[in-house]
Amino acid sequence: MARQNLLDTDILDLIRNEEWDEVSALLLDAHPADIADVIDRSPSNSQIKLFSLLGEDAKPDVLVELESVAEAEVLEALTNAELSEIVDDMDPDDAADVISDLPEERSEQVLELMEEGSDEVRELLKYEEDTAGGIMTTDVVALPETRTVEEALDALSHFDQEERFLNANIVDQNGTMIGFVDVWDLLREKDKTRTIGAIAHRKFAAATVDMDQEEVAKQVKKYDLVEIPVVDEGGRLEGRITHDDILDVIEEEAHEDISHMVGTSEEDITEPSAFRVSRMRLPWLIIGLFGGLVSALVMSHFEMAIERIITLVFFVPVVMAMGGNVGMQSSAIVVRGLATGEIDVTHTSHRLLREIRVALINGLVCGAILTLLTFFWLRNIHLGVVVGGALICVILVSTFVGTLVPLLLKRFDIDPALATGPFVTTSNDIIGLGIYFIFTTVLLNMIS
Amino acid sequence: MARQNLLDTDILDLIRNEEWDEVSALLLDAHPADIADVIDRSPSNSQIKLFSLLGEDAKPDVLVELESVAEAEVLEALTNAELSEIVDDMDPDDAADVISDLPEERSEQVLELMEEGSDEVRELLKYEEDTAGGIMTTDVVALPETRTVEEALDALSHFDQEERFLNANIVDQNGTMIGFVDVWDLLREKDKTRTIGAIAHRKFAAATVDMDQEEVAKQVKKYDLVEIPVVDEGGRLEGRITHDDILDVIEEEAHEDISHMVGTSEEDITEPSAFRVSRMRLPWLIIGLFGGLVSALVMSHFEMAIERIITLVFFVPVVMAMGGNVGMQSSAIVVRGLATGEIDVTHTSHRLLREIRVALINGLVCGAILTLLTFFWLRNIHLGVVVGGALICVILVSTFVGTLVPLLLKRFDIDPALATGPFVTTSNDIIGLGIYFIFTTVLLNMIS
Repeated sequence: MARQNLLDTDILDLIRNEEWDEVSALLLDAHPADIADVIDRSPSNSQIKLFSLLGEDAKPDVLVELESVAEAEVLEALTNAELSEIVDDMDPDDAADVISDLPEERSEQVLELMEEGSDEVRELLKYEEDTAGGIMTTDVVALPETRTVEEALDALSHFDQEERFLNANIVDQNGTMIGFVDVWDLLREKDKTRTIGAIAHRKFAAATVDMDQEEVAKQVKKYDLVEIPVVDEGGRLEGRITHDDILDVIEEEAHEDISHMVGTSEEDITEPSAFRVSRMRLPWLIIGLFGGLVSALVMSHFEMAIERIITLVFFVPVVMAMGGNVGMQSSAIVVRGLATGEIDVTHTSHRLLREIRVALINGLVCGAILTLLTFFWLRNIHLGVVVGGALICVILVSTFVGTLVPLLLKRFDIDPALATGPFVTTSNDIIGLGIYFIFTTVLLNMIS
Repeated sequence: MARQNLLDTDILDLIRNEEWDEVSALLLDAHPADIADVIDRSPSNSQIKLFSLLGEDAKPDVLVELESVAEAEVLEALTNAELSEIVDDMDPDDAADVISDLPEERSEQVLELMEEGSDEVRELLKYEEDTAGGIMTTDVVALPETRTVEEALDALSHFDQEERFLNANIVDQNGTMIGFVDVWDLLREKDKTRTIGAIAHRKFAAATVDMDQEEVAKQVKKYDLVEIPVVDEGGRLEGRITHDDILDVIEEEAHEDISHMVGTSEEDITEPSAFRVSRMRLPWLIIGLFGGLVSALVMSHFEMAIERIITLVFFVPVVMAMGGNVGMQSSAIVVRGLATGEIDVTHTSHRLLREIRVALINGLVCGAILTLLTFFWLRNIHLGVVVGGALICVILVSTFVGTLVPLLLKRFDIDPALATGPFVTTSNDIIGLGIYFIFTTVLLNMIS
């Protein structure tokens, strides 16, 4: 029977009518991810009640799957003793995620109350959130190379009920990772008394604890891995990162790129408080506002020219929009390419050249169209040619800035996604406007 | 030994110097994904040579990993006979991907020449590229429920050397999927003569062949799956989608969202031809250009007002930039949330209300700043208040449009990402400009 989505039932109506017996019955058999979905979408006054209806063994799995808002509600309602029992039953990486969401004092209290695994969780909490160490779990199979195939199979199948292990990582007497075997190598080996060292794959991909999560995701994607071992600088096996965490990273990085582009934070999507969303977006808007005022100052410098030929200002929206569009096209493409590894910084001049060529073609086409339409509209060929020429200049310069800035940021190890943010966009607006007025007033002065 | 990246060696220099013996030696031991990386980054005149240096068993794996440009070079250089041998050694889904990149006539010729598997490939080619059918492989373990655990273990480990199977899917006599067992269930079962029907998981997630790939990725992510079975409308097992293809889908969807946002195509990143890139971007730019000209027409209607109070036009860049920024913030967040499932269309009014609240706060703050700064700059309190008020209106309207349009598109089953494209952005520009001039001229007329 294919799994049925709880949200396709009338459970949300039952919750609204507080028919808890029927709700309980529906929750009993459901997948933790489905239950979490229901809690996420329920009115906040029933979220705690719903969580309390769950069995003790479902609570850890559901809590992990909740989105930040519902998670905060539930964490608030639980006592430290209840919470410590729940996180005790989680994988160490999930436990660390939940505990890191608590205020510092409370997280210490919960860690104190934990019966087992608190050392592992403390260990994980030391790592930066967006590094391999920050997303790995310490639940990992590490077997000495002298173990037999038989013993390894046994270890793999008995280690843990929740997360299944595909690979047994093989370590030497110092704990340094020297290779791995997977469950199929073990099953296929006829002589089950051979050592795993003898049948190991000795070339392997591994992440180091301080590796950026984006880099880890690239490795996993490149080598089509289901999980990746994590080692310290000395090559000692510290943990592993599983496929589901990699999916989260890829989605998070895409979120981050888009959030940077429009000037907000990744949490914007799920944040219900308008004040908090406003606080995420406002700094960027204020940068844009000041940038716009600088543009206004630039224009005021050309007040005399504008008074003489008022039609000049009609083309300000065209020039601004076009400069913004081409700049954003170039920088967004470079940012995405850098994120996925399809573009690398060693080819800067190559990329720049391609973008400039594109800008030349697009600039000539758009410039010609603008010249023609301006001529037909205002019956002034001089004005048409000058406005069209200015547009070509603006397109070239905006493309140059839009391509170069993310590449430069990457070179200096700054997140290139900042290049698509309002700061660079606004600078581009000001530069474009300046070019337009200088170009048009100088040329029109020469003509007249 | 941790895997070494080929690109960290001096292989690109060796290729440039055409020292093929040394290049061959480096390629011999490398991972197909690393070899593909090298070919992708080599000058196009050595790509074919590099591919020819590979052993016959490496060619299929490397060809699959090549990016579109290098792939096209290599496909062009291979004879139909060579190519058919290579695709014969691929997984059916990879073979279908390569063959679908060929011109129709040639793909038919290659299919004719294939020794085995051409039926499976033809079957896969029938499905739309971005559906579950289009990304699945037909290489799937389907066992009758009457098989024993022993037999299932044997089937799992012997099926295929390349892609390892985690799950044995269980079907009834009609081929309808009724559940699955994974390799650990089989290993842990003490009585290996039990039937797999007796120990099967009977609740499972499955994709249907025509399900959109984005929807499939959501299922995989939600249930933390490593692979997902694909069934037809009647529930017959047709194939499976593996974790690496899911990673590709998530990245592709993010690429697509960002490409739509800036008005280009996903292929832009890797396309080397400036003409082809220009063709991807130009249609959107021309829409933007015409939109800009409509803005110019709008402004020309207010020529008299502008002549009277020339300072009014200084604020055109501010108003346009701010309207554009807030509209893009709202629509980008809604588009991402819809893509990942964090926002659903049933909560339209909820989302709209949150965005309007955010717009009110941000509008009031930005409007107040603009009023103050305008007053200090131009010493004209009337103008300051009117311009600030106009900005608040523009921010409210742009937010409303930016939020509503993607939600409406989704309701009508149109890709909501179009809402972030230049078409809507340009409309927002025109509306914003219109509101600004109507608001300011009407109010300033009333005052004076």
